[in-house]
Amino acid sequence: MKVWELGEFGLIDLIARTVGKPSREELVLGIGDDTAAWRTGKSIQLATTDILIQDVHFNLDNVTWRDLGWKALAVNISDIAAMGGMPCYAMVSLGLPPDTEVASVRELYRGIKDIAGKFDVDIVGGNISKAPVAIIDVSLIGKASQVLLTRSAAKPGDLIAVTGYLGTSAAGCRMLKSSLKPDKSMTVLLKKAHLRPNPRVAEAQILAKNGVKAAIDISDGLISDLTHICEASKVGARVQMDRLPVHPRVKAAFKDEAMAMALSGGEDYELLFTAKSSVIDKIRKIMSTRFTVIGEITKEHSGKVTLLDRQGKTVNWDERGWDHFRSQGQEKA
Amino acid sequence: MKVWELGEFGLIDLIARTVGKPSREELVLGIGDDTAAWRTGKSIQLATTDILIQDVHFNLDNVTWRDLGWKALAVNISDIAAMGGMPCYAMVSLGLPPDTEVASVRELYRGIKDIAGKFDVDIVGGNISKAPVAIIDVSLIGKASQVLLTRSAAKPGDLIAVTGYLGTSAAGCRMLKSSLKPDKSMTVLLKKAHLRPNPRVAEAQILAKNGVKAAIDISDGLISDLTHICEASKVGARVQMDRLPVHPRVKAAFKDEAMAMALSGGEDYELLFTAKSSVIDKIRKIMSTRFTVIGEITKEHSGKVTLLDRQGKTVNWDERGWDHFRSQGQEKA
Repeated sequence: MKVWELGEFGLIDLIARTVGKPSREELVLGIGDDTAAWRTGKSIQLATTDILIQDVHFNLDNVTWRDLGWKALAVNISDIAAMGGMPCYAMVSLGLPPDTEVASVRELYRGIKDIAGKFDVDIVGGNISKAPVAIIDVSLIGKASQVLLTRSAAKPGDLIAVTGYLGTSAAGCRMLKSSLKPDKSMTVLLKKAHLRPNPRVAEAQILAKNGVKAAIDISDGLISDLTHICEASKVGARVQMDRLPVHPRVKAAFKDEAMAMALSGGEDYELLFTAKSSVIDKIRKIMSTRFTVIGEITKEHSGKVTLLDRQGKTVNWDERGWDHFRSQGQEKA
Repeated sequence: MKVWELGEFGLIDLIARTVGKPSREELVLGIGDDTAAWRTGKSIQLATTDILIQDVHFNLDNVTWRDLGWKALAVNISDIAAMGGMPCYAMVSLGLPPDTEVASVRELYRGIKDIAGKFDVDIVGGNISKAPVAIIDVSLIGKASQVLLTRSAAKPGDLIAVTGYLGTSAAGCRMLKSSLKPDKSMTVLLKKAHLRPNPRVAEAQILAKNGVKAAIDISDGLISDLTHICEASKVGARVQMDRLPVHPRVKAAFKDEAMAMALSGGEDYELLFTAKSSVIDKIRKIMSTRFTVIGEITKEHSGKVTLLDRQGKTVNWDERGWDHFRSQGQEKA
């Protein structure tokens, strides 16, 4: 059997089974959440790693090295945020073809520094290797108080909410790869969403401090990431499609496709969280960042996301979201 | 200018300048040592990352997936050891061509588990991506007491010592790539040195607890790694070539080449350390693992390694060791 036949998530299950249970009692979370977590004295340390590979995750025709640097760190900061943590220390493993311009590497690190400065991350190490294509693998260590946001804490009856808009990154990706030439403000909106995502660190802090327990960041796509919550929490989820927060300009430009982008596009790096309605009401009073309630957690249909139309009828939806080995026709920009 | 013209170490300097000084006061060490280090309560956390890329660091014709798993974690454990630390938590970023056999991935993780079990490392996370070649990037977090072994603590008058043998890994690499067919025990010796290196965690603990302050692990090669100590400590080093610990069987099989392997071959993952002679004497009484004094640290020739022959004459040596972008003719197995 080949890895593309098993798929990314089947492979993760196989790996988790092969490495077995961790042994340290300080370990709070191992494989299976947005980050690993372990106790050191009074605080919790978090760690995550995410890789960007040329012609898989990005295409150098469509992205500047500086944006690439931003994004490589942003996707990791988003994982730390999704646990309710603060990012601290980053290491960068870099693979480069030998004929890469030195100026490109400088730009890459300027992009890394742009976002590191904004989120108070120190770049503390890494390594550089020759490689057939450009590879940027960032490991990020963060810290959290005793309250973590996890994938496994959703409860039946919880409302499901998401910050910001969904599908804007996928729309930006589509724009970069096509001959689509929207007006300047639209171009800026879409490019920014896709190339310079803003991880929701401050928002996650508000959630963690005000009673939210379950969250994930939207990297693979709404359905896929909500399924991760359902599987880890052993619950189901009902999502009302007409409630999905799609930016009006994306809806106008991409029509029916905008819904697919919102459901399965991924890379929005928004926070998807669940909580009792009283907690959601409290968050609404405190948090200035927009968020939208899109459905609720159910006891039934454990591990599954059910999509409902305006009339409350179940909608069948095939695409789950990004799977590295199966989504052959769904290359990223 | 291209990165191969600037070279790996020039690039590291440029990156360190671009990202600038870290801001956190808890940070003990950032870019420039074997690991980063920061304080959390009473202990020190260490973090390092090292990548293996197909056809750059390994060739699937010469290495099993299981050995690859061992080595990917071993090289990181060696970095933690070189700081006097204990390895704790590992994350694995994996890039795989979609037609990779699932059984190969299982074997890779069995190899990772082999060494993780031996050194009490928990595998706590990672990610998997499609990639044009196999890529294994491991990040490892460890812990240390307040005493760290650093590259910058060597002092004039210190003796220079190294554990085990030098050049055995390079000899193993040569054997795997050539038609060389030594007898079985020799094959086992060389393959083990190259494919299943044993990081010196316990030895480094003894060094750190008994007054040694300066160490590095030998990954790039003796001259290159000793130069790192000289640069970081602002000292010089004199090495007596006839004292280098080359395994008698390697010396017999590879004759004059054995010296080049010992000086520049790299990947031995032995500990190179410096200390006052009284400390070295003490270590000799305590540590059962063999180690050899090969020279001394000098005030003169700061940042440079000087090689001396049996008569005390300076020997010119061109090859410094492994540089990812410059060592075009020096591919690894």
